[in-house]
Amino acid sequence: MRRIVADRFRRLFNRSFLLHRHHHNHNHPPFPASSSLTSHYPFSPYRFFFSTPFSSMASDSPFPVTAQNINPKVLKCEYAVRGEVVTLAQNLQKDLLANPGSHPFDEILYCNIGNPQSLGQPPITFFREVLALTDHPSILDKSETQGLFSTDAIERAWQIVEQIPGRATGAYSHSQGVKGLRDTIAAGIGERDGFPANPDDIFMTDGASPAVHNMMQLLIRSENDGILCPIPQYPLYSASIALHGGFLVPYYLDEATGWGLEIPELKKQLDAAKSKGINVRALVVINPGNPTGQVLSEENQRNIVDFCKQEGLVLLADEVYQENVYVPEKKFHSFKKVSRSMGYGENDITLVSFQSVSKGYHGECGKRGGYMEVTGFSAEVREQIYKVASVNLCSNISGQILASLVMSPPKVGDESYESFMAEKGNILASLARRAKTLEDAFNKLEGVTCNKAEGAMYLFPQIRLSQKAIKAAEEAKTAPDNFYCKRLLNATGVVVVPGSGFGQVPGTWHFRCTILPQEEKIPAIVSRLTEFHEKFMDEFRD
Amino acid sequence: MRRIVADRFRRLFNRSFLLHRHHHNHNHPPFPASSSLTSHYPFSPYRFFFSTPFSSMASDSPFPVTAQNINPKVLKCEYAVRGEVVTLAQNLQKDLLANPGSHPFDEILYCNIGNPQSLGQPPITFFREVLALTDHPSILDKSETQGLFSTDAIERAWQIVEQIPGRATGAYSHSQGVKGLRDTIAAGIGERDGFPANPDDIFMTDGASPAVHNMMQLLIRSENDGILCPIPQYPLYSASIALHGGFLVPYYLDEATGWGLEIPELKKQLDAAKSKGINVRALVVINPGNPTGQVLSEENQRNIVDFCKQEGLVLLADEVYQENVYVPEKKFHSFKKVSRSMGYGENDITLVSFQSVSKGYHGECGKRGGYMEVTGFSAEVREQIYKVASVNLCSNISGQILASLVMSPPKVGDESYESFMAEKGNILASLARRAKTLEDAFNKLEGVTCNKAEGAMYLFPQIRLSQKAIKAAEEAKTAPDNFYCKRLLNATGVVVVPGSGFGQVPGTWHFRCTILPQEEKIPAIVSRLTEFHEKFMDEFRD
Repeated sequence: MRRIVADRFRRLFNRSFLLHRHHHNHNHPPFPASSSLTSHYPFSPYRFFFSTPFSSMASDSPFPVTAQNINPKVLKCEYAVRGEVVTLAQNLQKDLLANPGSHPFDEILYCNIGNPQSLGQPPITFFREVLALTDHPSILDKSETQGLFSTDAIERAWQIVEQIPGRATGAYSHSQGVKGLRDTIAAGIGERDGFPANPDDIFMTDGASPAVHNMMQLLIRSENDGILCPIPQYPLYSASIALHGGFLVPYYLDEATGWGLEIPELKKQLDAAKSKGINVRALVVINPGNPTGQVLSEENQRNIVDFCKQEGLVLLADEVYQENVYVPEKKFHSFKKVSRSMGYGENDITLVSFQSVSKGYHGECGKRGGYMEVTGFSAEVREQIYKVASVNLCSNISGQILASLVMSPPKVGDESYESFMAEKGNILASLARRAKTLEDAFNKLEGVTCNKAEGAMYLFPQIRLSQKAIKAAEEAKTAPDNFYCKRLLNATGVVVVPGSGFGQVPGTWHFRCTILPQEEKIPAIVSRLTEFHEKFMDEFRD
Repeated sequence: MRRIVADRFRRLFNRSFLLHRHHHNHNHPPFPASSSLTSHYPFSPYRFFFSTPFSSMASDSPFPVTAQNINPKVLKCEYAVRGEVVTLAQNLQKDLLANPGSHPFDEILYCNIGNPQSLGQPPITFFREVLALTDHPSILDKSETQGLFSTDAIERAWQIVEQIPGRATGAYSHSQGVKGLRDTIAAGIGERDGFPANPDDIFMTDGASPAVHNMMQLLIRSENDGILCPIPQYPLYSASIALHGGFLVPYYLDEATGWGLEIPELKKQLDAAKSKGINVRALVVINPGNPTGQVLSEENQRNIVDFCKQEGLVLLADEVYQENVYVPEKKFHSFKKVSRSMGYGENDITLVSFQSVSKGYHGECGKRGGYMEVTGFSAEVREQIYKVASVNLCSNISGQILASLVMSPPKVGDESYESFMAEKGNILASLARRAKTLEDAFNKLEGVTCNKAEGAMYLFPQIRLSQKAIKAAEEAKTAPDNFYCKRLLNATGVVVVPGSGFGQVPGTWHFRCTILPQEEKIPAIVSRLTEFHEKFMDEFRD
């Protein structure tokens, strides 16, 4: 056993050295080498090395399961959004509770994750009314209910209960979700796009994450199967590809042009991957972008659709931020709408669109609702998708109901319409203001540049760190951006995620910060961030 | 492409022939051969062959994704509980709706799946009250609420809302679930077992299925990693092992002794697997049994614990039917309680217990709540389990709340206590009566024997089919039990699952039938079943 640990250490050390060398080569590499490790090249070279807890590996463990004998794909997977910095924050929070005043801040501000209600955003009243009524339908016809709930929420709850076979809101549904709810969603998609949707194309899921896993599971056969992913990307994609043993083929978003998604870059990375023997199977596009916040133009989307069509790639469209667009000059267009408007039908383009109840103006993360709309697959492959969905029986019914509400909110004339529009409008307008305030604040910091958040819930500023700061990080055995984020947390209580968790052009450093803290807290956050940053820059000035 | 299809056909044909030969050898084989296909030896030889839809495989598909180029693990996975017979039932249901009177029955009775509320079982009032109130907490302090909800439901809802950080019932929780709810669950386990549980050992999940997948993902590295599974088994296990590319090592439950789980059989199968180079990593035990309904004795459980300890196996204990015990001479004991009562602590036995809100007396399948209690893993491995849980953010909060309620229902003195106990008692007593009535009815049928359902929700009768029936099935290109179940469905509208979906001693034929149809429907079901069976036996008498 000791020999195995020593071997492992040696292997890791050699890999680390290799990556370290890459790190000092600031040229943007055309494509990572094909070893399983360097497929994660755009990620920090330090992450893999130090996140493996081999220092604590017992050589004579009493346990049959050890870090040496679990699935190596699990070991390899990383998910920084709830990674090291967040664990540190949770410990600080416990410490604050036990010893108030022990830190230079009195609360932890979780800007690491798109979790609006955890930071005080209230839920949309109409949605919660319907959920409560469908959870306990026996109050639907009680007189007290009229006083507690709006008329249209009661009506909608009746409709939904009637759509569920046997009114059994506690039964497993059809594996794809309750048919009536899928009808509502399909109608909502049709209204959004101006092109019809088929309820049989909808697979309802517990949030978007399981839907992404389903697709990766379907497409990835071995480490020779590649998935084109944006860099930076939402780490669900890298985690899911790692768990399913595939190869992440990176394409870089161009920070200089507002995180532009350029077709020549896609083509270059695709060809490079093919020349290494990788079967590239799909292209992931996140629009609006996470962590980058850009909203694609319709023309750009048309080119992406044509690229996928020509190259025989499945287009995996992460469209969970479709309601989160903050600039008047941009508008969300679904890839389905774009492809149908180009005249492409079922047989022309294979497209999966992911939607979630966790984002948008409602931010119902805890409900775990979502769906994927699956088009352009043969009947035989759809059967396989259905079979895998059926192994897990169905997604949760409250999440299914909420997904139907999100795609079919109150309409003009409904009792709740005005209050609903006011709640929605206030949240989206406030998010837009918060995005702008934080963007401006980041751009005022020395050595920091930050693209506009046109959409989604994040800013992804670049920080130019001094050689002295980079050296200090090396001595602390961590990546420079991780070093910065931990210092920021310890000084201010603000939790952000290092860019290395999302991937970035090697030698550049970023962090992701959500725009979600409540508006009245933003000025304090800005001043704490600014004060910290100035001190940090002074401390590490070359 | 055509050549590939032809090759595939030839391979499948050869495999089918091999299996077919096995099938005619009625001796119970000591262990399946180590090919990936024959690891599924106890399952029907016909399933794999005919379920692959290669006959419809297009050789010039317009789609980039085809059945030939998806992940073969997905192709291999089977889940009969929602398989071919159920699809046929759904089509019959549509047909009945469109053409009433077109079949010799006027409704489809879904006895294929443990889905109590779909068959009319009402939800537990207290649970639904709390769910509704926590979904819409702003009504908690309204006066009308007092008239609609019981006092203790309002109190409990307040408690739960206070346990959720920021009262944010719509936020992602901690990746393992809301800490306060895990405290409640741990206290409930402690009360059940008489041994304490640690809330940090609880990982809350969207039903038990994702928890099982998590463990398979952790333990299975390749097709040389084996998991000991009962035969017959709940097909989630075979499906999950197939999806994760592992090897199902079968151990046979002894039908003659009421589905006894014998240690010598475990040892024999373990040794046989080891001799083939399989690393056997875990033992799955389903108690109370699914589909077999037996409840293990405490002594048997102690022997199983010792076996796992001696052999260094993880004990994966499916305990989702812990509330479903129908015979006075048997009692549910958790494997955690049994191991602690033997003096074994954290360092002595690695044990995972799965629990779900879908079963018990409540049967809240659609809520997708559940948890696994994870004990006896090193800190480094627990970190990995946590990391994978965090990739999916958290399970749904309503399901989490319900899991806490199930483990901490109303107590003596609470306003709801008496009505709760009456609802629970009625459901369980009725399930016991239904189990007995159906068991007796099956045992009266010619050529059928059926063990008692001591627990869970199923009966798994054996049907001895004539050579003529087996030949007719062969001609219809399906397994004999599948043939019987389809005929039963077409004649009666009753949906049961062929034994081949669960695994059975080769050459024997069974089906699984739930005990869940409402009590007033049981006499009609019995007479329809009896009439069908008599005709079937007459038609195919040798």
